[in-house]
Amino acid sequence: MSGDRVPSGTPALVLTISDGVANGTRHDDAGLALAEALGEKGFAVRREAVADERSEIEDALRAAATDNALVLSTGGTGLTPRDVTPQATQAVVDYEVPGLAEAIRAAGRAKTPMADLSRGVVGVLGRALIVNVPGSPRAALESLEALAPTLRHALETIAGPFDHGAAGAGHEARPDLPDPHLPESEAAERDPEVTDDDESDLADLDGDGPEEDEPDQDAPDRDPDEADRGEHGSEIR
Amino acid sequence: MSGDRVPSGTPALVLTISDGVANGTRHDDAGLALAEALGEKGFAVRREAVADERSEIEDALRAAATDNALVLSTGGTGLTPRDVTPQATQAVVDYEVPGLAEAIRAAGRAKTPMADLSRGVVGVLGRALIVNVPGSPRAALESLEALAPTLRHALETIAGPFDHGAAGAGHEARPDLPDPHLPESEAAERDPEVTDDDESDLADLDGDGPEEDEPDQDAPDRDPDEADRGEHGSEIR
Amino acid sequence: MSGDRVPSGTPALVLTISDGVANGTRHDDAGLALAEALGEKGFAVRREAVADERSEIEDALRAAATDNALVLSTGGTGLTPRDVTPQATQAVVDYEVPGLAEAIRAAGRAKTPMADLSRGVVGVLGRALIVNVPGSPRAALESLEALAPTLRHALETIAGPFDHGAAGAGHEARPDLPDPHLPESEAAERDPEVTDDDESDLADLDGDGPEEDEPDQDAPDRDPDEADRGEHGSEIR
Repeated sequence: MSGDRVPSGTPALVLTISDGVANGTRHDDAGLALAEALGEKGFAVRREAVADERSEIEDALRAAATDNALVLSTGGTGLTPRDVTPQATQAVVDYEVPGLAEAIRAAGRAKTPMADLSRGVVGVLGRALIVNVPGSPRAALESLEALAPTLRHALETIAGPFDHGAAGAGHEARPDLPDPHLPESEAAERDPEVTDDDESDLADLDGDGPEEDEPDQDAPDRDPDEADRGEHGSEIR
Repeated sequence: MSGDRVPSGTPALVLTISDGVANGTRHDDAGLALAEALGEKGFAVRREAVADERSEIEDALRAAATDNALVLSTGGTGLTPRDVTPQATQAVVDYEVPGLAEAIRAAGRAKTPMADLSRGVVGVLGRALIVNVPGSPRAALESLEALAPTLRHALETIAGPFDHGAAGAGHEARPDLPDPHLPESEAAERDPEVTDDDESDLADLDGDGPEEDEPDQDAPDRDPDEADRGEHGSEIR
Repeated sequence: MSGDRVPSGTPALVLTISDGVANGTRHDDAGLALAEALGEKGFAVRREAVADERSEIEDALRAAATDNALVLSTGGTGLTPRDVTPQATQAVVDYEVPGLAEAIRAAGRAKTPMADLSRGVVGVLGRALIVNVPGSPRAALESLEALAPTLRHALETIAGPFDHGAAGAGHEARPDLPDPHLPESEAAERDPEVTDDDESDLADLDGDGPEEDEPDQDAPDRDPDEADRGEHGSEIR
């Protein structure tokens, strides 16, 4: 489905978190499988491996988020004390996206109840989406499939622009962040089916509508309190 | 369905969180739609709007929780840095109710996978239930529908009384809190179907049974350790 | 189903959290029902009761985790200020296992939407799995049933061994912890169906494979950075 594809060349890192892979005693089957699957969706994929050490994982995630739109980790999501990927991810993200973690587990639960034992976290760090999937190649690929329907839209949203009508009020949205990772020439490309009114309304959970509808950046900076006391804050009972 | 209705006049606030609505450049379609839907369920509804500023949202939530049984926010639940409603809500609630947030997303997922991108939080602050729904009018209304079957029971539980059999032990449940928000004359009104044994047992997740079964407030204040070593703490293997 | 059984004699504690049960004015119906159900699965079960006091609950959970493989609490998961079991559990666990809490609620939701009002937490403390279920006997038993398909595997994973291929790298997994709780003679006993390739792969979410595949403990302690720059960290685009 073209709906699952991202703009060609969107940078992604597959981070394998495994003592065995990091020390060279284990093949990185899950990492390879994920990299291939992401490549088929249009991503330009690099792979790295780190041991199940929380500080190493945190460093790897922070570094990866600076120049990737997607950081997909595999491994370390289980129930042993060596499984610290979720804790490391929670420590570095700006905020979690619990619905995507729930969706991955709900899809997995339909195949095996063991999917509930993955503690994988999904979150946003800067302009990167970080997704933890289990270490088993099969569970990792199934998790990625569960994400596929929302992945492109999620990355487009994170990449910005972030005006939200706030530019005129002097609220720059994270001006410290680097430019979005999505290749410029392709970020504007849209499938016909998502510009269809019905679909785009469904996807517009944030209610800010398509960009064309955003208020003018020169809109007067009105006092929100005044607005509250006026039309918007009026009692309607 | 009468099961979805709350006692007439139960106070609710619809808080629209949107730079555009707050500065008057955008119509509050979602807020209006939610207010109308809540009115049909029996709530007395006010509306307010604030910008996507975390401190303003926190202040608005805290103020609203002092005199509303339900605070329903719309907007700011997405993936951009301007979407801070979940963080603001997590900062002010006494505790989250993850099952309601999961239920909203699970219902949404059945219609569109994009529902997973809402990071909406549900939590309790004092005696108010705070619910974050997305900013799109359609997603907002669908989220409210997902809550409908549990909303009345949740508000009744939060409104108290909170004796839990503890009054005799000197443990007053939050005596600092104002009286419950539910109108007194109607809080006692109950639908026949919820006093039916089967239903009330299903709803009595807490296992404390209907109020009539609560222990006498003059019950002796027994030493819990003694109880543990006695009948309740005995080994049964 | 034998798949639901644990090695005979696996120690479990049922912790009833209820002011009424703790002070002796209420029968511990839920605790008794859970203890009986756990006994049928092979557990050696003890029961205790504490009041809905956060510090008492935390103390009871910490003590129970030192010599039980499973600590199953019932009660205190609802929406009143006296319901503090989830907060106490979150305060003591090493990490949460959100998928099991989600699975319990998802299974409950299929029977009654009221299941969403349980804020029950599942987490790991040392080598014990702590599970919060509601206080109603029916909801408590249904929650345990929702856990049943994963319970044995979860406890086996938590009990260790935890080598993860890291022993040779000098990373002992929590050497401070006591020996696993599973009876030694029976921990090694495995059902034929879980050594079946397909099943064990499904269960091997962590991707480390069966223990026989773990790298030799004398494997050279290679520099993970070197590994990253080599085969595993190489770009594959």
